[in-house]
Amino acid sequence: SEMAEQVDGEGRAAARPLLTDLYQATMALGYWRAGRAREAAEFELFFRHCPFGGSFALAAGLRDCVRFLRAFQLQDADVHFLASVLPPDTDPGFFEHLRALDCSEVTVRALPEGSLAFPGVPLLQVSGPLLLVQLLETPLLCLVSYASLVATNAARLRLIAGPEKKLLEMGLRRAQGPDGGLTASTYSYLGGFDSSSNTLAGQLRGVPVAGTLAHSFVTSFSGSEVPPNPMLAPATSEGPTVDLTVSVKLWLERVCTHLELEVQEPHPGERAAFVAYALAFPRAFQGLLDSYSVLRSGLPNFLAVALALAELGYRPVGVRLDSGDLLQQAKEIRGIFRTVAAQFQVPWLESVPIAVSNNIDEKELARLAQEGSEVNIIGIGTSVVTCPQQPSMGCVYKLVSVGGQPRMKLTEDPEKQTLPGSKAAFRLLASDGSLLLDLLQLAEEPPPQAGQELKVWPPGAQEPCTVRPAQVEPLLRLCLQQGQLCEPLPSLAESRAFAQKSLSHLNPAYKQLQSPAVYQVVRSEKLQALVNSLSARGPL
Amino acid sequence: SEMAEQVDGEGRAAARPLLTDLYQATMALGYWRAGRAREAAEFELFFRHCPFGGSFALAAGLRDCVRFLRAFQLQDADVHFLASVLPPDTDPGFFEHLRALDCSEVTVRALPEGSLAFPGVPLLQVSGPLLLVQLLETPLLCLVSYASLVATNAARLRLIAGPEKKLLEMGLRRAQGPDGGLTASTYSYLGGFDSSSNTLAGQLRGVPVAGTLAHSFVTSFSGSEVPPNPMLAPATSEGPTVDLTVSVKLWLERVCTHLELEVQEPHPGERAAFVAYALAFPRAFQGLLDSYSVLRSGLPNFLAVALALAELGYRPVGVRLDSGDLLQQAKEIRGIFRTVAAQFQVPWLESVPIAVSNNIDEKELARLAQEGSEVNIIGIGTSVVTCPQQPSMGCVYKLVSVGGQPRMKLTEDPEKQTLPGSKAAFRLLASDGSLLLDLLQLAEEPPPQAGQELKVWPPGAQEPCTVRPAQVEPLLRLCLQQGQLCEPLPSLAESRAFAQKSLSHLNPAYKQLQSPAVYQVVRSEKLQALVNSLSARGPL
Repeated sequence: SEMAEQVDGEGRAAARPLLTDLYQATMALGYWRAGRAREAAEFELFFRHCPFGGSFALAAGLRDCVRFLRAFQLQDADVHFLASVLPPDTDPGFFEHLRALDCSEVTVRALPEGSLAFPGVPLLQVSGPLLLVQLLETPLLCLVSYASLVATNAARLRLIAGPEKKLLEMGLRRAQGPDGGLTASTYSYLGGFDSSSNTLAGQLRGVPVAGTLAHSFVTSFSGSEVPPNPMLAPATSEGPTVDLTVSVKLWLERVCTHLELEVQEPHPGERAAFVAYALAFPRAFQGLLDSYSVLRSGLPNFLAVALALAELGYRPVGVRLDSGDLLQQAKEIRGIFRTVAAQFQVPWLESVPIAVSNNIDEKELARLAQEGSEVNIIGIGTSVVTCPQQPSMGCVYKLVSVGGQPRMKLTEDPEKQTLPGSKAAFRLLASDGSLLLDLLQLAEEPPPQAGQELKVWPPGAQEPCTVRPAQVEPLLRLCLQQGQLCEPLPSLAESRAFAQKSLSHLNPAYKQLQSPAVYQVVRSEKLQALVNSLSARGPL
Repeated sequence: SEMAEQVDGEGRAAARPLLTDLYQATMALGYWRAGRAREAAEFELFFRHCPFGGSFALAAGLRDCVRFLRAFQLQDADVHFLASVLPPDTDPGFFEHLRALDCSEVTVRALPEGSLAFPGVPLLQVSGPLLLVQLLETPLLCLVSYASLVATNAARLRLIAGPEKKLLEMGLRRAQGPDGGLTASTYSYLGGFDSSSNTLAGQLRGVPVAGTLAHSFVTSFSGSEVPPNPMLAPATSEGPTVDLTVSVKLWLERVCTHLELEVQEPHPGERAAFVAYALAFPRAFQGLLDSYSVLRSGLPNFLAVALALAELGYRPVGVRLDSGDLLQQAKEIRGIFRTVAAQFQVPWLESVPIAVSNNIDEKELARLAQEGSEVNIIGIGTSVVTCPQQPSMGCVYKLVSVGGQPRMKLTEDPEKQTLPGSKAAFRLLASDGSLLLDLLQLAEEPPPQAGQELKVWPPGAQEPCTVRPAQVEPLLRLCLQQGQLCEPLPSLAESRAFAQKSLSHLNPAYKQLQSPAVYQVVRSEKLQALVNSLSARGPL
C-alpha cells in the first residue's frame, strides 16, 4: 500500500489546476484588478442536506484534495490557454501572478477521511490569498462531493448487508469515465465495501481487488478445445500430476448420476472453460453458473471440476450467479451442495461461497441479506457507483471571511444563507460515547468543556437550549499549514476502519435509511449573535 | 482546436490499461493457459434499451476509445501489479505476453461520433486476438457508456430548449471526480450544448468555455474597497479615460430615481464588485443579480455600471439569476430593461441577455423555454452531468465470434441473449431522408439495395415483414485497421453538427421525450436463420 501511494504520488496530481470553472479565472482577474489578489480569505466546504434522505454522510476525498493542493501549479500551457479566453489587453502581471501560484500560503482544516459528517459542518476550511482560494473552489468541490457521496452510499449498503456479507464493487463500466471509476472504487471501499473489480484502484490506491471470469470466457469455448497442457500437480506438490480433463470427465459421470441428469446435458464448452480456468487458478477456481442453464449445466460442470480439483487437494473459492432470482437459486444450490457433500463425503462443499450480481440495489440487497440467505458475496455495480437515488451531493464552498472580517451570504432564499466567520466545530458526546450533537462556534471562542452545561442554538430556534456533554471532540484537524502537510494521512484501510468505528457510535435512530431521526448541528451563542447582527443589517 | 487535440494527445491516453476489471486479467490468464490467447475474436459493444425512456441515443466516446487503443501498452509497473494479484506460480511467459501487447492487431468498426444509435446496433465492433480484445472490454465500456449517456441527455435537453436558447453546461463540481467532469463537458457539448464552464474541457477538447462571476466574488466586497486604478479608457481608445466609480455613482442616482428607490438601498459591496469586474472585463460585463435583493440591489447596481460602461462605448453581456422563480424574474427584469431603455434612450438595453441557473431539470427547462420566455441563456449543472433520470447507460460488450465461428449467449433470460456472428448494419431511409429502420445482417451478406424490397425480421416476430428503402446507409465505419487509424477523426464541433443533423432526420414521433414511438432494429433473413439454428441446438 505504501508502494501504491508512491506510484500514485509520482504518477500525477489528483486534478489539474485548470479543472475549474472559467468563472474562477475571470473572478481571479477581477480580484487582481481590484488589488485584492493577496487579501486573506477563508472558504468553507460543506453540504446542506444529507444525501439519499438519510441522516448522515461520510466525509471523503481529503487525500485527493491534499494531493491536488500540494501539486498545484499552473503550467505555461495553462496560462496561455487562460490568456486566450481572457480579454486581450489583460495586464501581463496577472498571468505572471498565476504562473507563480502555489499552495504554500494555503492552510486547510478538515474533517478526517471517514468521519461522520452532518449538514453545515465544514468538511474543509480553506484559508489563503483570496484569488488563489477562489480558484480552488471547483476542483475541491469536484474531489470531495462525489467521494463523500459514494462513500456514504457504500456505508448505507453496508448497513443493509450487515457485517458478514462480502461486498464487491464492480461498477467501473457504469462510472463517469476513467476517474469516475477510480474515485468510485476508492471511496466505496472506504465506505465499507470489501473489494473492487477495478484493477487500477488496486494498483494506485491499494484497494483489495477481486474477480474471476465472465460469460464471454465461458461462451468462447465450444468444448472441442484441447488444453495444450491438461496436467495438474497436487496442491502439496507431492504425488503425480493428473490429467484434469480426464478426472473431470469421471467426476461428471458421478455428479450427473447423483443429480439424475444425462451426462450429455451439461454444456461441454462451459466445462472446457471451467477446466481452462481451473488449470490457471487451481487455488482460486470459481464457477460462473448461468451462461446456459444453472441447474442442468453450470452446477454439474462446476461440481465435476471442483471435485476433481479437490482430489488434488485444492478447494474452489465459490460459484457466481448473474441472472434470475438470486436468493432462491442460492438456496437451491446450497441444498445441492449439501446432498453432494454427503454423497461424496466432501464436507467442505457445504460451505462453498455463493456470489451473486445483477443490478442489485438497496431493496434487492435487503432481500439478499435477509435471515437465512445462502448468499455470501454480493457484487454491486451501477447502484453503488452512480448513486441512482441521488447522483450528486450538493456540496458548496462559501466565503466566510475576508480581510479578517466575517462574510455572510444574505440571499432572499434563507436556504442559501451561510454562517459567517472563521469557525471551530465540536462533537458533543454522551458518557457512552454516543453522539449528542455537533456544535459550530467562532474560532476564537474557548472550546466547550466536558461535563459543563452550555447554551446552544438549533437552526431556526427562537431561544437556546442547554446541553451538558460528557465528552467533547474537536472535529476539524489541521491538515495543511502554509502548504505543509501537518501529519501523515491515514491509509485508505485505516480511514475505512475509522468510518466503521464512527458509525458504530451513531444511535440507530440516525442510521435508519428511511425517515431517520435528524441529527442536530447547533450554534454557539456567540456565533448566533454574529448571525443576528449581520442579518439585522439586512441585505443592504 | 488542433492545438487542443495535440496537447491532449501528448498529455496522456484516455485511460490506462489497468483501468479494467480484474476478471479481464484472470480470464486473460485462462485463455493463455488454454493456448487461445491469439485466437481471432470479435466483440460488439451495444446497449439494449435507450436511456431515459427515450427512443434514441447518440453514439459518443469514440475519440477517447481511439486515443486509448492507440496508446495501449502495459508498463512494467502494471505487469508487476498483476503478478502480485495472480497465482505466484503463473508462467512468466504470460507476463511477457502482456508486456508486449499493443493494439497493432486490433480492428475497430464504429458508429461515427454523434450518430443516432438504437438498441442492438453495435457502437463498436472490436476484433483481434482473444486475450487482448477481452482485456479491452471494461475500458471501452467505461469510455463509451457515460459519453453516450451524457450526449443523449444533452440532446434531449436541447430538444426541450429549442434551437435558440444558449445552453451552458456547468456541472463539473457535481461530476464523478475529475475525468467525470471532463467527459461530461466534452460530450454534453457534442450532444447540443453551446458551451461549458469547464476550463480544462476548453484547453484539452476545444469546447467553448464561458463564465463570469459567482456570489463569493460579490460578497467578498463590502463597499469600502478602493480600486487601485478606477480609470477606464473608452472602447474605441479615443477620448479621455474616466473614473468608473464616479460615473457609476452618478448613474446610480439616475437609475434609483427612475426606479423609485433610495440611493442607499442597492448594496455598496455588490456595486463595488460589479465595478471591479467591469474594470477587468469592460467588454464582457455581466451582473449576478441575486446576492442580496434582485430588484432593490442587484438590478439597480447592474444598471448603474452598465450605463456607465455604455457611456464609454461598452455593452454589457448580460445579467444572471441563480435563485427564485427564474421565469417570472426574467420577465420583470426585461420589463425594467425596456422602461430604462426608453428613459435613458439606450435601446440596446432592451435586449441584454438574461442568463439563469439553479438546479434546472427537464421540467424546469421546458418552463423556461416556453413561448414568451425572456430567458436567453440557461446554465445546467447537476441535471446534465449526473443524468439523474438514469445515471448509467447499460452498454454491454459481447463476444460474437471466435476462431471464425459465431458465438451466442443462450441464457435462461431471453433479455440477455446476444446476436451471433460478425455483422454489418444499415440504416434504411425513406425518399425524404427520414429513418425507416436499422438492419443488422451477417457481414458476408451483400448490402441491401435502395429501391429493392427485402424481407426482415423484427425481434420476437413469428414471420418476416417486407420493406423497400429509398436509400440505404451503411452504419459502421472502419475506424482502426490493425491498429492504424483509417481516417482522421472529425473534430468535436463537426461531430456536434453531425449529431444535430442526424436528429433532424428523425421523425418527431421518435423524438418525443415521454412515451415515444419505438424505432425498429430488424434482422436479415440469414441472421435470423443463424439465430434460429444456434437456438435450436439449445443451451446444450
